[in-house]
Order: sequence, then structure tokens, then C-alpha cells
Amino acid sequence: MTSLPKHLTGDQASIDEFIDKFDVRVLWSGDHTFPGTVETLELLRSKGKKTIFVTNNSTKSRPEYQKKFTSLGIPSHVDEIFGSAYSSAIYISRIMKLPAPKNKVFVLGEAGIEAELRSEGVEFIGGTDPAYRRDITPADYKNIADGSMLDDNIGIVLAGLDLHINYLKFSLAYQYLQRGAKFLATNTDSTFPSHHAFFPGAGSISIPLVNMTGQHPIALGKPSQAMMDSIEGKFQFDRKKTCMVGDRLDTDIRFGIEGKLGGTLAVLTGVSKKEHWEAEGAEVIPAYYVDKLSDLMG
Amino acid sequence: MTSLPKHLTGDQASIDEFIDKFDVRVLWSGDHTFPGTVETLELLRSKGKKTIFVTNNSTKSRPEYQKKFTSLGIPSHVDEIFGSAYSSAIYISRIMKLPAPKNKVFVLGEAGIEAELRSEGVEFIGGTDPAYRRDITPADYKNIADGSMLDDNIGIVLAGLDLHINYLKFSLAYQYLQRGAKFLATNTDSTFPSHHAFFPGAGSISIPLVNMTGQHPIALGKPSQAMMDSIEGKFQFDRKKTCMVGDRLDTDIRFGIEGKLGGTLAVLTGVSKKEHWEAEGAEVIPAYYVDKLSDLMG
Repeated sequence: MTSLPKHLTGDQASIDEFIDKFDVRVLWSGDHTFPGTVETLELLRSKGKKTIFVTNNSTKSRPEYQKKFTSLGIPSHVDEIFGSAYSSAIYISRIMKLPAPKNKVFVLGEAGIEAELRSEGVEFIGGTDPAYRRDITPADYKNIADGSMLDDNIGIVLAGLDLHINYLKFSLAYQYLQRGAKFLATNTDSTFPSHHAFFPGAGSISIPLVNMTGQHPIALGKPSQAMMDSIEGKFQFDRKKTCMVGDRLDTDIRFGIEGKLGGTLAVLTGVSKKEHWEAEGAEVIPAYYVDKLSDLMG
Repeated sequence: MTSLPKHLTGDQASIDEFIDKFDVRVLWSGDHTFPGTVETLELLRSKGKKTIFVTNNSTKSRPEYQKKFTSLGIPSHVDEIFGSAYSSAIYISRIMKLPAPKNKVFVLGEAGIEAELRSEGVEFIGGTDPAYRRDITPADYKNIADGSMLDDNIGIVLAGLDLHINYLKFSLAYQYLQRGAKFLATNTDSTFPSHHAFFPGAGSISIPLVNMTGQHPIALGKPSQAMMDSIEGKFQFDRKKTCMVGDRLDTDIRFGIEGKLGGTLAVLTGVSKKEHWEAEGAEVIPAYYVDKLSDLMG
């Protein structure tokens, strides 16, 4: 029986103890900030704490994320940002290292993935190429079936959030997998939050391929430890002195627990609620929680 | 232990016995015929056997199917044809009978579904409407989230094979389901065969919604018995004197077995192979099999 998390909101002694305990915070990142978030990050920085931003959003590259943080008033450096597109590019170029020429990637996704693959020198097709943003034609069926429309050098299918997904792309990705390409996903979140509602996430792009092939992709976003290894490869941080902060139990908090970080802090401004870890059989239980991040300011 | 099926190919005595035993054949239907199929159907008809054509393809209406059969040289009548689009329309109009006004359907699919819904007087939006065949815009996120872009009278989401599927349609379907719409699928085949290869089937359109909502749709195609009930409602045939003929164990043959038809005949010109029912733990075992349908001509 794991014990229930400590509620830090309004408990100054516990907040101080919490802040002292960790040197590094690995922070989730959504599309907006809540009141007080910027000030809280400044407070932590002033106490010498390092912040790393980790996001499963694969549609933006790290430089694009950095721009966004700047616009939100959050100082950051590109090297402190880890996105699932970057994590995927690293995995492909430094871990898989498929031998040329059969090492090209067929991308289901947006420009963020393309930018990160380019930064690692990985060749790819698909993605935002307008040639794939069209309806399937009768000739396509024939040319996909007989292989004449396929690139023989595709060794990997990488599925991320593709806001321009279509039947042609699904058909091509399936055919590449059938012909032996390895199956990766930037992340497999079924949804993502926007405007206080939910929209189809990257997992909605990969799941038809899972259903068709019976294969599951290697996922490179949280809670995959491939993401943690990629962060560690860059920072050599002490896991025991590091706390994962996030608003989703199944990705953020699980990521911290499975990565054996020193602590996990759930923030109740997102998807996950207190009831989730209090429920019978709850598997993912944070060490701490606050109602909102700015509660750390006391 | 169910016994293995009888191989009819080349065994004239068994073929004669088989033909005598059944009055009605329920036939699967693909996109092409094999040599001898037309002659075989004529032979059966000359012996007074009734043929019913059943297809999970939802992209064509029954009249469109009938035209196709005519072009293939197969005499047929619209009433002998059952498609999953028709079966879905029947289910919505005659079984669900949701009270107006919240009984409109949001369609993910092609013209065949629309034609069948119209023939049953069911109101719908989506489908082939060009208004939905476009990229999602920043304003859409807001308008979907706040409901201003949604039709309050949608009570059902019906997912079939949509060759023009896109992110906007997935987002809208998900939102309708979140707001309580019932979830139906014309069929849930993950793939369908074309040009000796496979392409994403209707199941590839519904599976992201299953993954996002945790709900499974009521499927109206084979092997769903809703399809069998719909056929029976029309013909009052004797199930014991009826044989299901098909090339897919998991849809066609299962459909016949679960429908308690008198027999099932597997035809080895499609997806399923002899090895499938001979495998350890095989669940779906036909009563008979032939290498190709024309083997019934002896």
C-alpha cells in the first residue's frame, strides 16, 4: 500500500521542505499558463533550482517552444526543453541507428517533427509535404498495392499528432509497416486539452495502425523512459534530487515514478483529480500535490 | 473440440449433398469476382436456390451495389442486397427510434451511408458535405470547445469507411460522443482488400474514437447479429436451411456460426487460409470449405 500524497497547498513548512529537497524540476508543459506560474518559476530559479520543460506535444520544435515560453514571460533556454519530436529524433539517430539506405522515416505529423529530424540529420518523407495532403485516387490504390508509389528506403514509420491526417497517409503508413518498417510514435496520448475541452491526440493517429497491424509502436514521449534517458544524456542530473511536476497522472506522474525520480508533484489544474489516486486500485500516486503551481509561493 | 471442415473441392458426392442441403446462400461480397463465380451463381439459381448478398462495405448504397453486380454479369435484385450502411440505417430508424429532436446523426463516411439514411428518413450532417472536408482552423478549436459549432440535435455518431477522414471530423465526432451521442459503426473491419493488398477499413475510422472515449460502438456489419436480424426481418428464411458463404473467418464465417445458420462454407480465395482454423485454439471453424467458389460446379 503506497501512502497518499502530501497536500502542500497552504502548508508553508511542508512547502519549504519540498523546495529544499529538490534541485531540479522536470515540468510538464501545456499550451497556457495559470496565474502565478511565471512568478513561481522565478521564485524557484532565484533559489538556484534548475527547471527542465518536458512536453509530449510533437507539433513544435524546441526553438518554437522556446519562443512560446518567451511570449508567456517564462525565461528558458532551448537546451532545457524536451519535446517528444526531439526525443523521437534522438532515438532514431543515436539509438536505433538503422544502416543506410533503409533508414528513411515516413512521418505522420507536423513541422515540429520535421525540424527535429533535420536537426539530427535524419532523412524523411511525408510530414507537411503537400504531395500527401490530398484525397486518395483510384490510381493510388493500385500504386500503393504494387509498391510503385512507395519509397524502398523507408525503414521507420513515425506517428505524431498530424492535424492534416488523411486516408492516403494512413494507407501509406500501413503499407510501410506491412513491409517491415519499424513503428514509432512521438507519444500515444489519446487526447490533448485545448480551450477547456479535449481534441484527438497523437495516439489517435497511431491507433488505427495498431489496430490494423497488431503491432504497438515504441512511444518516445512521457511516460516512456526513452524520454528520461534522453534528458539524462544531456544533463547528468541526480535523479534523487529531481522532482517531476505535472498535471496528468498517467503520463507526467507515471514518468517520474518509473524514472525513479526523488519526487513527484501533481498539480490539480489539469486532467487528473484527487479522486483518481484516492480510487480503489489506483496505480499512480504522486508524492505531493498542490491545487495550483503558484501555491508553492506560499 | 469442433471437427475440422469438409473439403468439397473435387468431391462430387459431397458437393451434391451440400447443394441439396441448403435453400438459401448468404454470400459475402468483395469488389471483384473470380473466374467461374457468375456461372456458379447461375447453377445454384437454376437449382432453385436463393442468394442473398451481404457486404460490410458501407460506401455504396444497395442500388449502387446492384448496378455493380449487373456490370459483373450477376443478376440480382436490390432487396437481395444487404450492406452495412443499410443495416445501420434500419437499426437507427426501426430499432433505436430516438425521440426527436435529438435524433440526428453525425456521419463519418461516404455517399452510401447517406443514401441509406435518406431512404429511411433519418436526418444527418457530416458525411460528404464539403463543409467538413477541410483543415481544422484555430477558430474551430474554440467553437468546438464552447459548443457553438455543434448541432445540439445530434444523438448518434455513425462511423463507417470515410475516405475523406480528417482531423476536424475526428474532433467533432469525439465532441458529440463526449456530449452523450450514441456510438454506432457500420462495421469494424480494420482493413479491406483491394488490388491484392489491404487498406484501412471502417474500423480504422472508429478506433481513434474508441481509444479517446473508452466506449465501443455498436457495429452493424458482419459478424454483428444486428445484420442477421435485419436480413431475417425482410425474408423470414429458415436459418437451418441457410448456408453462409464467405472468405473471412472472423466476419463471414463467424456471422454464420453465431447466427446459427445450418452451415458455413469458407472459400479460400480471400484473407482466411486453411491454416487459420487448423491452428491451435482456432475459434472459428467453418463446416465446409472449397478452394474457390466455382469448385461447386464440380
